[in-house]
Amino acid sequence: MTATTAAAPPHKLTSKGQATRARILEQAAELIYTKGVHATNNEQLRRAAGVSGSQLNHYFPTKESLVLAVIAWQAERVLTFHRGERFNCFDNLDALRAWADFYVGYERAYQEGCTLGSLASEIIKTDLDVHDELASAFDQWRGIFRDGIERMQQLSRISAEADPTQLANLLLAAFQGGMLLAQVARDIAPLKDALQTAIDHVQTFATSPDAGVLQAR
Amino acid sequence: MTATTAAAPPHKLTSKGQATRARILEQAAELIYTKGVHATNNEQLRRAAGVSGSQLNHYFPTKESLVLAVIAWQAERVLTFHRGERFNCFDNLDALRAWADFYVGYERAYQEGCTLGSLASEIIKTDLDVHDELASAFDQWRGIFRDGIERMQQLSRISAEADPTQLANLLLAAFQGGMLLAQVARDIAPLKDALQTAIDHVQTFATSPDAGVLQAR
Repeated sequence: MTATTAAAPPHKLTSKGQATRARILEQAAELIYTKGVHATNNEQLRRAAGVSGSQLNHYFPTKESLVLAVIAWQAERVLTFHRGERFNCFDNLDALRAWADFYVGYERAYQEGCTLGSLASEIIKTDLDVHDELASAFDQWRGIFRDGIERMQQLSRISAEADPTQLANLLLAAFQGGMLLAQVARDIAPLKDALQTAIDHVQTFATSPDAGVLQAR
Repeated sequence: MTATTAAAPPHKLTSKGQATRARILEQAAELIYTKGVHATNNEQLRRAAGVSGSQLNHYFPTKESLVLAVIAWQAERVLTFHRGERFNCFDNLDALRAWADFYVGYERAYQEGCTLGSLASEIIKTDLDVHDELASAFDQWRGIFRDGIERMQQLSRISAEADPTQLANLLLAAFQGGMLLAQVARDIAPLKDALQTAIDHVQTFATSPDAGVLQAR
């Protein structure tokens, strides 16, 4: 149901089988992130993962099954990263600034964009039946920011007048749009501007000048 | 050099030739907007435009030449729309609100996204040599917002403390990211939220409560 569970193998595999499947998946995710879905073919994937055509076919009988698994794999990585301790559930403005800094400093951002968003953009118009998987992943991602802003409100760090869902959509849109603009410009500046300004906007709701400072760990 | 000039035929054509080329281009833009670049093939395009294979090949000998022309065509439409009288060079906040309202009310926004951004996202990782064309189009688009914000400052409608380039990147990123999120969610709400909140942020720099009101036409 969730993007996370879909990353698990669909049926019982031996530990060796699981390792092979994981290796294929990791290589597929890397190839797709670098070259895009359409330019990634079985031959490249077979060589990168060191598997035979029949092995590849055993684990991923169709391109759709492979793309679905890569979406789930990338979604799990993105969501796990955002849920990590370093961001403390985004319950303070400093966490949002640290998050922006991380991606602005990520050298592949303006080359290849967001690992999940660039994949979504590439296939959203195709016939691949991956829509529910993408929608679930982005819903969860947006939920992380929304929950963080609601928590900031509960902690009286930002005003109750802020709309958590609106602000979460602004943050995620600034991130996705900034990634695209950075790729097009081959320059990180548009992403940096968009994230910084979106977070500045969240900060306009701060209840005190030091509301951004992390008060408890 | 600019996206606009590239939309013109690359060499002298008769008026009949120009009309044929324009018809192919319009149909190609529509097919690509609906189905994506990869799913659009010559056979569909030939039928949609009512031309022979040799005619198609005459005007667009390669897929790259066709995609380049479609980028230029879409860029010209987007830029012309944004430069139109209805937005008065974006020299006031009401114009930004009207712009957001237009796209939030555009029924294809959450189905097919931005005519230019969705195309850019789909091909940014491919080998197609379209990067300069895309970068030029997005530079000009960003420039429209930046110039508008600078004009708002000259008219003392918003504070001199606002950074026009940063705000222009926020607006364009919120637009592009909001379009992607809307497509993924099959719901216009993420775009609406992102645009409204981005414009709210520009408004935090307003010098007076009525700064958004258009003062002169």
